[in-house]
Amino acid sequence: MTQFAVVGHLARTDGAFSLNDLPSGGGRMDVLCRCVTASLFLSRSLRRDVECSLVLLGPPVPPKTVKFSGSSVRSLNPDERSPAALVKKALSIPCGSEFRESSAGVSVRKGGLNRLVEEQRFGVLDEKGSDIRKADDLPEAFLLSDHLNFSPDEETLLSACPKFSVGPAVLHAESAIAVLLNELDRRASEWD
Amino acid sequence: MTQFAVVGHLARTDGAFSLNDLPSGGGRMDVLCRCVTASLFLSRSLRRDVECSLVLLGPPVPPKTVKFSGSSVRSLNPDERSPAALVKKALSIPCGSEFRESSAGVSVRKGGLNRLVEEQRFGVLDEKGSDIRKADDLPEAFLLSDHLNFSPDEETLLSACPKFSVGPAVLHAESAIAVLLNELDRRASEWD
Repeated sequence: MTQFAVVGHLARTDGAFSLNDLPSGGGRMDVLCRCVTASLFLSRSLRRDVECSLVLLGPPVPPKTVKFSGSSVRSLNPDERSPAALVKKALSIPCGSEFRESSAGVSVRKGGLNRLVEEQRFGVLDEKGSDIRKADDLPEAFLLSDHLNFSPDEETLLSACPKFSVGPAVLHAESAIAVLLNELDRRASEWD
Repeated sequence: MTQFAVVGHLARTDGAFSLNDLPSGGGRMDVLCRCVTASLFLSRSLRRDVECSLVLLGPPVPPKTVKFSGSSVRSLNPDERSPAALVKKALSIPCGSEFRESSAGVSVRKGGLNRLVEEQRFGVLDEKGSDIRKADDLPEAFLLSDHLNFSPDEETLLSACPKFSVGPAVLHAESAIAVLLNELDRRASEWD
């Protein structure tokens, strides 16, 4: 299974944002929603072996993590509003420290990056990292940031993680996910 | 310059769609908007050497073409509603057979695929095409379809165009654009 986790530094942690204003009202929830779509959608089906976790660090009760599981998600369309509506629903239910399902294939818990990094060995997307095409092995889990850089505290937390770069241009997170999945698809199918 | 053209088979050709309902009301305008974002955005800047044309074939007055020029576009944000609002504005002004600017870097004309293919040699994204990584040369212009396949008439029109595939999985158009741009970035910077 492939896992992506995307840190939303300003992303709201309650459902009090409008689906009509994901960038400002949602704390750049639009970025995170495009990452869900890039992670889970194929042209006419879903990637059932991919999970995408959104680490929400905005007000009012950070951190929370909302996880989309390709294996079981339903009622998900690729437009930004569709994952946003499922995030909104996840953020509207009470949650504790264990994942609780808010709709099919979508679950939420309190906690953020510290906990994810304890549970999973992540490769971090970083423009100074090793080229993904040249890496002998790629990890099963990748961590990305939204429109903001990782904070100094996050950099410290992630200092032991291997760093990977998808190419010479610095891309939006959703485009980096598309490029990464292409590399993984090619390796799995022995295209290259 | 790199050009992308994306055929929106059902995409509306007037501004009578709601920004709150791009998938149904806009005729899958959400797909086209994500393609604009994937074509033009870098992490913190725009790709000034890229154009993205949307070929709109839906009601009420098809075909029309709306072109986003990275060199001059302004007031464009990466969320789906932002390009959608600029498309809506372009579709609300009278236009003829020549491109007319509706806002900075966005222009509109009557006409569709026939005319584009006369003006530019396109490579067509096709799951049975040649692997972009293995191609000695890649064209400067790429044509993609939205969520629907090219129609038989379109296939005939495009039969002489070279076909390229981005990988073993069949992707959404915006993900295919991200993968293509990554390959072009690598070639331009001699990463690979």
